[in-house]
Amino acid sequence: MKPAARQSFTKHFEKIPHIAYEGADSDNPLSYRWYNADEVIAGKKMKDHLRMAVCYWHTFRGTALDIFGPGTLVRAWEDGSNSVDMAVKRTEVVFDFITRLGLPFYCFHDRDVAPEGANLTETNKNLWAVAKRLKELQAATGVKLLWGTANMFSHPRFSQGAATSPNADVFAYCANSVKEMLDVSKFLGGENYVFWGGREGYNTLLNTDMARESDHAGAFFHMAADYAKKIGFKGQFLIEPKAMEPTKHQYDFDAATCLAFLRRYGLEKTIKLNIEQNHALLAGKDFCHELDVCRINGVLGSVDANRGDAMNGWDTDQFPNDYRECAQAMLIILKNGGFTSGGLNFDAKVRRDSYDVEDMFHGHICGVDAWARGLRIAAKIAKAGKIDKFIKDRYASYDKGVGKEIESGKATFESLQEYILKKGEAAGNASARQEYLENLFNSYC
Amino acid sequence: MKPAARQSFTKHFEKIPHIAYEGADSDNPLSYRWYNADEVIAGKKMKDHLRMAVCYWHTFRGTALDIFGPGTLVRAWEDGSNSVDMAVKRTEVVFDFITRLGLPFYCFHDRDVAPEGANLTETNKNLWAVAKRLKELQAATGVKLLWGTANMFSHPRFSQGAATSPNADVFAYCANSVKEMLDVSKFLGGENYVFWGGREGYNTLLNTDMARESDHAGAFFHMAADYAKKIGFKGQFLIEPKAMEPTKHQYDFDAATCLAFLRRYGLEKTIKLNIEQNHALLAGKDFCHELDVCRINGVLGSVDANRGDAMNGWDTDQFPNDYRECAQAMLIILKNGGFTSGGLNFDAKVRRDSYDVEDMFHGHICGVDAWARGLRIAAKIAKAGKIDKFIKDRYASYDKGVGKEIESGKATFESLQEYILKKGEAAGNASARQEYLENLFNSYC
Amino acid sequence: MKPAARQSFTKHFEKIPHIAYEGADSDNPLSYRWYNADEVIAGKKMKDHLRMAVCYWHTFRGTALDIFGPGTLVRAWEDGSNSVDMAVKRTEVVFDFITRLGLPFYCFHDRDVAPEGANLTETNKNLWAVAKRLKELQAATGVKLLWGTANMFSHPRFSQGAATSPNADVFAYCANSVKEMLDVSKFLGGENYVFWGGREGYNTLLNTDMARESDHAGAFFHMAADYAKKIGFKGQFLIEPKAMEPTKHQYDFDAATCLAFLRRYGLEKTIKLNIEQNHALLAGKDFCHELDVCRINGVLGSVDANRGDAMNGWDTDQFPNDYRECAQAMLIILKNGGFTSGGLNFDAKVRRDSYDVEDMFHGHICGVDAWARGLRIAAKIAKAGKIDKFIKDRYASYDKGVGKEIESGKATFESLQEYILKKGEAAGNASARQEYLENLFNSYC
Amino acid sequence: MKPAARQSFTKHFEKIPHIAYEGADSDNPLSYRWYNADEVIAGKKMKDHLRMAVCYWHTFRGTALDIFGPGTLVRAWEDGSNSVDMAVKRTEVVFDFITRLGLPFYCFHDRDVAPEGANLTETNKNLWAVAKRLKELQAATGVKLLWGTANMFSHPRFSQGAATSPNADVFAYCANSVKEMLDVSKFLGGENYVFWGGREGYNTLLNTDMARESDHAGAFFHMAADYAKKIGFKGQFLIEPKAMEPTKHQYDFDAATCLAFLRRYGLEKTIKLNIEQNHALLAGKDFCHELDVCRINGVLGSVDANRGDAMNGWDTDQFPNDYRECAQAMLIILKNGGFTSGGLNFDAKVRRDSYDVEDMFHGHICGVDAWARGLRIAAKIAKAGKIDKFIKDRYASYDKGVGKEIESGKATFESLQEYILKKGEAAGNASARQEYLENLFNSYC
Repeated sequence: MKPAARQSFTKHFEKIPHIAYEGADSDNPLSYRWYNADEVIAGKKMKDHLRMAVCYWHTFRGTALDIFGPGTLVRAWEDGSNSVDMAVKRTEVVFDFITRLGLPFYCFHDRDVAPEGANLTETNKNLWAVAKRLKELQAATGVKLLWGTANMFSHPRFSQGAATSPNADVFAYCANSVKEMLDVSKFLGGENYVFWGGREGYNTLLNTDMARESDHAGAFFHMAADYAKKIGFKGQFLIEPKAMEPTKHQYDFDAATCLAFLRRYGLEKTIKLNIEQNHALLAGKDFCHELDVCRINGVLGSVDANRGDAMNGWDTDQFPNDYRECAQAMLIILKNGGFTSGGLNFDAKVRRDSYDVEDMFHGHICGVDAWARGLRIAAKIAKAGKIDKFIKDRYASYDKGVGKEIESGKATFESLQEYILKKGEAAGNASARQEYLENLFNSYC
Repeated sequence: MKPAARQSFTKHFEKIPHIAYEGADSDNPLSYRWYNADEVIAGKKMKDHLRMAVCYWHTFRGTALDIFGPGTLVRAWEDGSNSVDMAVKRTEVVFDFITRLGLPFYCFHDRDVAPEGANLTETNKNLWAVAKRLKELQAATGVKLLWGTANMFSHPRFSQGAATSPNADVFAYCANSVKEMLDVSKFLGGENYVFWGGREGYNTLLNTDMARESDHAGAFFHMAADYAKKIGFKGQFLIEPKAMEPTKHQYDFDAATCLAFLRRYGLEKTIKLNIEQNHALLAGKDFCHELDVCRINGVLGSVDANRGDAMNGWDTDQFPNDYRECAQAMLIILKNGGFTSGGLNFDAKVRRDSYDVEDMFHGHICGVDAWARGLRIAAKIAKAGKIDKFIKDRYASYDKGVGKEIESGKATFESLQEYILKKGEAAGNASARQEYLENLFNSYC
Repeated sequence: MKPAARQSFTKHFEKIPHIAYEGADSDNPLSYRWYNADEVIAGKKMKDHLRMAVCYWHTFRGTALDIFGPGTLVRAWEDGSNSVDMAVKRTEVVFDFITRLGLPFYCFHDRDVAPEGANLTETNKNLWAVAKRLKELQAATGVKLLWGTANMFSHPRFSQGAATSPNADVFAYCANSVKEMLDVSKFLGGENYVFWGGREGYNTLLNTDMARESDHAGAFFHMAADYAKKIGFKGQFLIEPKAMEPTKHQYDFDAATCLAFLRRYGLEKTIKLNIEQNHALLAGKDFCHELDVCRINGVLGSVDANRGDAMNGWDTDQFPNDYRECAQAMLIILKNGGFTSGGLNFDAKVRRDSYDVEDMFHGHICGVDAWARGLRIAAKIAKAGKIDKFIKDRYASYDKGVGKEIESGKATFESLQEYILKKGEAAGNASARQEYLENLFNSYC
Repeated sequence: MKPAARQSFTKHFEKIPHIAYEGADSDNPLSYRWYNADEVIAGKKMKDHLRMAVCYWHTFRGTALDIFGPGTLVRAWEDGSNSVDMAVKRTEVVFDFITRLGLPFYCFHDRDVAPEGANLTETNKNLWAVAKRLKELQAATGVKLLWGTANMFSHPRFSQGAATSPNADVFAYCANSVKEMLDVSKFLGGENYVFWGGREGYNTLLNTDMARESDHAGAFFHMAADYAKKIGFKGQFLIEPKAMEPTKHQYDFDAATCLAFLRRYGLEKTIKLNIEQNHALLAGKDFCHELDVCRINGVLGSVDANRGDAMNGWDTDQFPNDYRECAQAMLIILKNGGFTSGGLNFDAKVRRDSYDVEDMFHGHICGVDAWARGLRIAAKIAKAGKIDKFIKDRYASYDKGVGKEIESGKATFESLQEYILKKGEAAGNASARQEYLENLFNSYC
């Protein structure tokens, strides 16, 4: 990090050192063992591969409440109010935290940074009041906005949906929210804009017109794209799929569901996806499956870097620690050419009984190092090329003869039948070697 | 049924009566209590609403083996061989069974009705030998072919995929299979043609090129469509989604995933979906969700009428018995205008310890009555119109004012912002009344 | 209900009629179609079979918040405070609601009825202040306390467990809580006392000594039993199993896990179980499985009558509506001789978008009627006796010969080997007839 | 391995080298990178810590069939018969495989090693014929029998249960099976005897008397224990829990369910558990949870070392490769004092498209190294002692004062209330530090 990043606006983290790379043998829990921001791996600095972001909501607005109890986290910097004044003061703590971690990005919802006002005009005004301070802090620290978004799920007005609400006023309300946040994102140089629709879905078909709700969502995204174009916002639009929770069934269930939607409404060139590990699990899928579906469909935008618990059926949003999974994920991201506008956002929260400021650091350090180690492993695998070669060879029959005719569009059922009837039976398959490959993968870890 | 259906080709079911409608108070387990084939409900005969089919595979080729043990079902008509001779003899038993149940349709895979030969030419020949007998039996009984399909998952050559195999020969082999079955389906007047791709998917990304496999699948479906057009086969193409099992991840995961695929490859006008209750569960979805996704996207083709066990994570393929769920499903099917070419195929099997021929009847009677009762309930709900009206009213704000502008494409973020800023807050939401609606639904059951 | 129950303490439900039985053909949504409290079914009044209770927490303290948003329910009787004064005033609304539904019982946690005070002494005092009013209202209305319990999961002090907290002070705190609630339960004539340990479990084994936590739980239950004995509280102790949520793994995972625990600590005569439908699902089990495990182990105490969503992995606590499942459950309860001290507690909440007071009634009416209808079906099945007879006959080989020797303890491996070697093979199994039985079951619905 | 182990009885693996330890940097896929059998780790040779076994069924009797297709594996040593002659010949291949891997143990079911005969007498005779050859091969190679078991689930006679069958003859049949296998296990020096009851459970409560089935199971285990005592078999009895599959609900659902059963029937001193990773997942539990439940209840017997797929709901029985999970498991095993009679049995099978003999080796090498690496990590963690110390400190409040009184049985609700009322509130909780601990764990990997 540049020296500029080392300044502190507040005293709240003064007992925590700036987190530095000390190497794999360090036993200092407040150091990185794998993340060395400026080290070049596979032709790029680690920080530029990983583009890691702190999320505003869990880390600075979460109190670790759950459905069975209120928050447990008490932060010294909070005055107990949800005022604009507090909102502005809080920004300094946030930037102190990010710079102490030495990470380059952050992400936020409108309502994370600024409270609703007495009416919508005031609400918008509050947002801009804080945005101005955020811009100053970005300039002072070099921290950038990975993406912004609007919270259109918490307030009771959204309880039946946002852009898919049966109440057209709520749709209009959301138009204001996204319009303002697009303006703010442009103002802050945000590199992406994310949509997560926690209330976009349904609880029972008995009261739901899915067709109409789907069309409304399609219309909403088009309006957003039109507006972005109009104001010259160049950030990438991203939808963040989630299968369920809080809503029984969410319309952005998984990557494939989003692709079906985007293609239906002609949005597939406009919007990419932001894939979250925990959300993949809730959809009954491996994280890497979701990433690879995005990659092959050209919509791998960004990643919410957390983890769920496959034995629990809700969004636990834990800090990632399985570096083997991060390595598989990074392999896909490298194959995609790396992130362009996207990055790794730590959409993760400390456990309800991790009460201390120190725990905020431990969580992030664990996550940063899991992904940094994953990158190192992935780079080794990519460089060795053995797995890539195995895959290429496995499909070699499509590089010539009848396979080539299939891929080039020359083959028909009749031509293929003629070929195979002559042969009488297909050539034998080669072993798919899963066990060999799994062991090979481990050899890079 | 027409008297013609009452003839018997064999003696195997002579102890079982022709299953007749006896009304809800009957305590004869070998009667229908709800299915009265020619009774008119909601303007159509029950048999024409439901279009029910017996499946060849589970009911006549299944032996109730599972992964932990061999088959337990011993049928008197089987001679223990997998010969063409046995295949032809078996067809008579099948038609006796269907006519005894009084159902109008059946479905089969190529390999259900005829064995593989020593080479592919012989295999094709075997298929046609049986197909001729099937045609005669159809004519003699009035039973029709709801759909045909090719088994491209059992034989070891398909162990790495069929149209998505890394082995181009296997793709060619499948071209022959589908070509022949399209010819046979046309010959037998099949009303649909189904694709279920149990091996179309992957077990590990470490050896898989998903992009290439996806493209191969796209090419295959186009070739099938081209061939059908060429021969004048008018049946509807259907893909049957399944999330997983036998393959870890299957490409036809669920309805939305299929839609994404169809739209990517320009197949959305060509192919509809065949939705199975058990497969919906494996995808983490309610059956009715899958049906409604199909309905609103214009791809509700046909239904595999079975049920899974939400507490078991594999395809149990049980006979349906939850008539409340069938009623919800029939509501969606009615809203879709009913089936056109599709119907209800009992893709279900008796349990491994239901050893007797009698159990084959009990399973089907239970399933037929569950759906017939469901139809009666759905028709009452549709006639009463209360639920429909509730839904229509719920979205009334889109029928006028700002909502109408949204739906007509006139609204923009700016126009909506102007509207809502003036208002200051969205109008309140009305209760979504889920509990009322659930109780109302029960009042029709 | 007795006329006394018809009085109203407040005006809050004056627009809602007293819910009365109007029969299955009624289309009045504010009536019972199946629950006729004083009608005798299977030798007992429906109300005495079902012993239904309103829960205080969801229905009167819940605001429909979820993890993604605050409460949406605004009740006219709430003054916004969590004061003792409000607590006392609220009791009248509660009793008005229960009497308007005509249900005989209610259930509560200490913290539902009275707030914490500035210190524990005051907290206890608050509880007693409200308890006195509850006793008066019970007397005035005839409504009784099905069970009481202590909330030892919401407050941050319990975030690492209650009786299994690593902090011994928290254990002591809980001793006070349960002691007071046992005193209160005795004071109010509570028929049971329930333990639900939402925080009794662990989030990671990395910081957990399961052995020690288990022993602490064992000690706690023994202290509770000793104290109850000392004060002469005759209510039945009940543990309510839940697999997970809020805690990753909860120690009372399911019925079997509780039985293992009770037997380890010699508590199997002291404590029975309170089975909840939604909790059964979270444990990967059918509700009826859990009930039957309790029945055959002599611990079927009471039921939390709600339902979960098998497609969602968290506690949705919805009102029950699947009367077929209720019928199966009632069959088991009847086989158990009915409830003794237990009953059906509607541990259910209206959806977040069911904002109105009316919805509170719809939810309960739906649930009451689902169970009442289930009771009617179960009584028919029990009276017909066909399913019972089928089961009895299925095991007939154990009523004589070698089977009888096995059951009487006379058989040994040697004697059985001698028998079966002589026979050479086991007699064939009869069909288990699942499909027939499922259809038979439906014939009573 | 001793040189004796290096002899080959057959030529089937001659192209595969004896698998030797080559260190972490080896890129030879047919070597161990982490398993160095005679290297001393934490005071014991690796082979004595891990006690690894090859399973007979998957590796030598499996053909990779699944429910959607027949076997794909064709082994050169198989003559296509299920004869005793083939059975005897096969034993040599098995021992060649084990010795080439350099593993010390194997496991088998009766039906893996010898076929059923025309009657039960002949079946028993067949078993002994092969057992004699096994004994010779054990002597020749030094390979030992970790455990034996009887297959009481495959044959149709077991389709409704084995010891819990409603058919008493089947119970008697099973008495013969287990009696013979206990005799054989004694003859071969088996160190344990395992029960896995794939059919011990139910498919529907509509035909099931769970109480009677449970009692029959209890009686069966007692007879087994009596017989073992009589013949002087000293091996440890083990039950292998599995939640479901093939049966809808299995009685040995998980560790806790088995404990409840063992305690009910007074078997808790007689029987321990054999925990399988994949079975833990099917029960909705982490593998390490199951292990730790066993450890704290004194029933941690042995381990089936495989892995499932948390996204698939059936038993995939894959080779383990997640060494981080193996490390956590080994930590628990070390805390348990290591295995006594138990060990790690690779109850795993190659994928259906891993057709080659080579794949059998890759699978085992991957699994052996995952556990060997796990052991190395666990030993480091145990030696460092930081995690242990953290846990001990976390519960320190129970080592003194009121906590000590609780643990010593001196505290009562009254004494604790007095204490806490005086204090007014519990002392604050310390952070549970999950994120710190997860990162710390990774630092040893």
